[in-house]
Amino acid sequence: MSAKTARITAVETYDIRFPTSRELDGSDAMNPDPDYSAAYLVLRTDAGDGLEGHGFAFTIGRGNDVQVAAIEALREHVVGRPVDQLCADPGTLNRDLIGDSQLRWLGPEKGVMHMAIGAVVNAVWDLAAKRAGRPLWRLLAEADPAWLVSQVDFRYIADALTPEDALDLLRRGREGSEARTATLLERGYPAYTTSPGWLGYSDDKLTRLARQAVADGFTQIKLKVGADLQDDIRRCRAARAAVGPGIRIAIDANQRWNVGEAVEWTRALAEFDPYWIEEPTSPDDILGHAAVRKGVAPVKVATGEHVQNRIVFKQLLQAGAIDVLQLDAARVGGVNENLAILLLAAKFGVPVCPHAGGVGLCELVQHLSMFDYAALSGTTDDRVIEFVDHLHEHFVTPTVIRDGHYTAPTTPGFSAQMHPHSIETYSYPRGSFWVADAATTKAVTA
Amino acid sequence: MSAKTARITAVETYDIRFPTSRELDGSDAMNPDPDYSAAYLVLRTDAGDGLEGHGFAFTIGRGNDVQVAAIEALREHVVGRPVDQLCADPGTLNRDLIGDSQLRWLGPEKGVMHMAIGAVVNAVWDLAAKRAGRPLWRLLAEADPAWLVSQVDFRYIADALTPEDALDLLRRGREGSEARTATLLERGYPAYTTSPGWLGYSDDKLTRLARQAVADGFTQIKLKVGADLQDDIRRCRAARAAVGPGIRIAIDANQRWNVGEAVEWTRALAEFDPYWIEEPTSPDDILGHAAVRKGVAPVKVATGEHVQNRIVFKQLLQAGAIDVLQLDAARVGGVNENLAILLLAAKFGVPVCPHAGGVGLCELVQHLSMFDYAALSGTTDDRVIEFVDHLHEHFVTPTVIRDGHYTAPTTPGFSAQMHPHSIETYSYPRGSFWVADAATTKAVTA
Repeated sequence: MSAKTARITAVETYDIRFPTSRELDGSDAMNPDPDYSAAYLVLRTDAGDGLEGHGFAFTIGRGNDVQVAAIEALREHVVGRPVDQLCADPGTLNRDLIGDSQLRWLGPEKGVMHMAIGAVVNAVWDLAAKRAGRPLWRLLAEADPAWLVSQVDFRYIADALTPEDALDLLRRGREGSEARTATLLERGYPAYTTSPGWLGYSDDKLTRLARQAVADGFTQIKLKVGADLQDDIRRCRAARAAVGPGIRIAIDANQRWNVGEAVEWTRALAEFDPYWIEEPTSPDDILGHAAVRKGVAPVKVATGEHVQNRIVFKQLLQAGAIDVLQLDAARVGGVNENLAILLLAAKFGVPVCPHAGGVGLCELVQHLSMFDYAALSGTTDDRVIEFVDHLHEHFVTPTVIRDGHYTAPTTPGFSAQMHPHSIETYSYPRGSFWVADAATTKAVTA
Repeated sequence: MSAKTARITAVETYDIRFPTSRELDGSDAMNPDPDYSAAYLVLRTDAGDGLEGHGFAFTIGRGNDVQVAAIEALREHVVGRPVDQLCADPGTLNRDLIGDSQLRWLGPEKGVMHMAIGAVVNAVWDLAAKRAGRPLWRLLAEADPAWLVSQVDFRYIADALTPEDALDLLRRGREGSEARTATLLERGYPAYTTSPGWLGYSDDKLTRLARQAVADGFTQIKLKVGADLQDDIRRCRAARAAVGPGIRIAIDANQRWNVGEAVEWTRALAEFDPYWIEEPTSPDDILGHAAVRKGVAPVKVATGEHVQNRIVFKQLLQAGAIDVLQLDAARVGGVNENLAILLLAAKFGVPVCPHAGGVGLCELVQHLSMFDYAALSGTTDDRVIEFVDHLHEHFVTPTVIRDGHYTAPTTPGFSAQMHPHSIETYSYPRGSFWVADAATTKAVTA
């Protein structure tokens, strides 16, 4: 099959789960025992070039099978598409998936079905970048601004961002982009770390890891809060003592509070100079975030990892509800929707500090921030990507952190590809880890 | 097994699909060819009383399998629960399902997982009402107000509605409820009909059905709009000519527009005196609806069938974004969340005109409106339940419309139960209808 007539021949899916709950890694006020998981897919083609598109939705365990089923429901939209055309214009597939008139009822543009769309669309971008021989961030940074605009769905956001606005922002973003690309390749993109702050960790572990974070070059750490105020006061005090006054400490309530509680609780922690309060309440509560922001200033308000789509981000910006926008690479409808979100943030002048961690979220989202720096906002001021040091070893091109910075990826693609051995071992429930685990459990309970 | 120690023994699920797309029933600007479907479940017990709980999520075809998978992901939370306890307090199950710390990641409280929660919770209420020997609306209308308050999850809405507010509203709602119950039993609850207005119907069919609606006693009809402005002008003119000036004509764009388009298009139809514009834009766009409402007054703004949860309804009310609240019985987290939504509407003084149609939505939602009239808002002024005359024959106790009113159900339960024969025939893809259909398709294309 020649490359010109190649088509997508298969969408293979995998239910991959890691037993992270056993170490309380990732524990917070709402998620006491996550098993970090990926509803993973591989796009295969008959191009004969050996290239595949990899993508995934991130979940935290139960329901990963539902997420896989949602990806499979999209299969008929993808198989048979000409690869050239698909990779030249992922936006058409993106619109077709969002526009499926029957599947649309299950969202629209939210929850399980929308994350499935994001996984498929991201896999297409992985394939497109591999075929172009570019890491995704460079493919985006070097792309024609008009083409980038064509990749954005302006439906429901045109009252805040028009195609003309977007083109203007992208054209201005290109000025000086070569120099910024060189900076990224040399220095990387600033990161902050959540590793010290999981709720399940002891104060000693928190202190040790916080000191380590500073020694490793991070200038911001994050603590989970929201389960018990006295514990939070003690932990914030320990963290501030460990890192000193010059390091930013973000706090994260993972949606634990009502609006009033969020204001009171955050004020009670104000003496430890928290930089932002993250997810103070429901990610759906735009007006609630605006009220919290008024109530806790000068502490900043951040949210985004659970914000379902560009329409809610638009309103958070319109309502002046957030100081920091935390997009997630695998929550919304993929790269295309994240382009819209980056453009909205640029239009409103709000810094983007992406959510990451989980399985592969660091690997993906670094590309979006690096594109933003190279060719859109043009700055890293007050911008940091979350970093959590878990599960990177399962990826073929894992993130590399050096002196508190994400090193710029140079391998073609979206850094989304997992090792075949990891996929096999952690496939649920028939991968070798889970089979052995079930046997052990049986032996113990027998 | 004695009734006292009975437990839930099974959650059986069914993927039921009706081939409605072949008649263009249900066609609108966003949903040109729906196959009305139900992700259906039956709760079985070992009580030995023959009573089962039936519930479902409504979808429009593709993805109904994903919806069934989501219901199955909740099974372990339900099987084994003591039936007495479950039926005495469905709110605890409701909170446990919403609070599952791993499944929560797939929402939270939106999309496929949240509709699954709604289906399971509604099945519990069906069982509870059957065991109590009451139609659900009467069980709710006669319940102790304090107990009803205990069934509501105030998380994320307490800034707009406190438990004290709710108790006050429900206590006041009980005054005169016996007389209103008698009115419901005698006269029923006012309905409006969407049957004339599907986008796929010819002008002749529209005119004929609109006249028939008036003859049948309806005082409001609804037309789908939003695909083509000239068509809409022609269809609105025909409808107005058919029904005369005294009948309300609602128009429904099914989310077709951006904010600016919504205002322009609605104004262009103003000469035909539309009563409300429904779903002018994305159901997620609270601020957008507020802008549309300002732009189209005195035409009212209505939305709700796709509003994901109480948190978004809260904001639509806080922002003054809607004149009419269209709750849906099977979109949100079941009766418990709809109690919260009815209470919010009562607090803000906004009339509730539920969405219905589809499969079984009329059967369910009549109970909520009748409870509201009997024991909460206490009025039917400017309140109507949507009625669409499709697929009722598949239900054991179908809705009965008399003189433009829903007749009050008297059979114990939530009217959710389908005939076994219908379930068998339309189960997808192995039910007898679909097997025969596949054979015909094969014969035709052979």
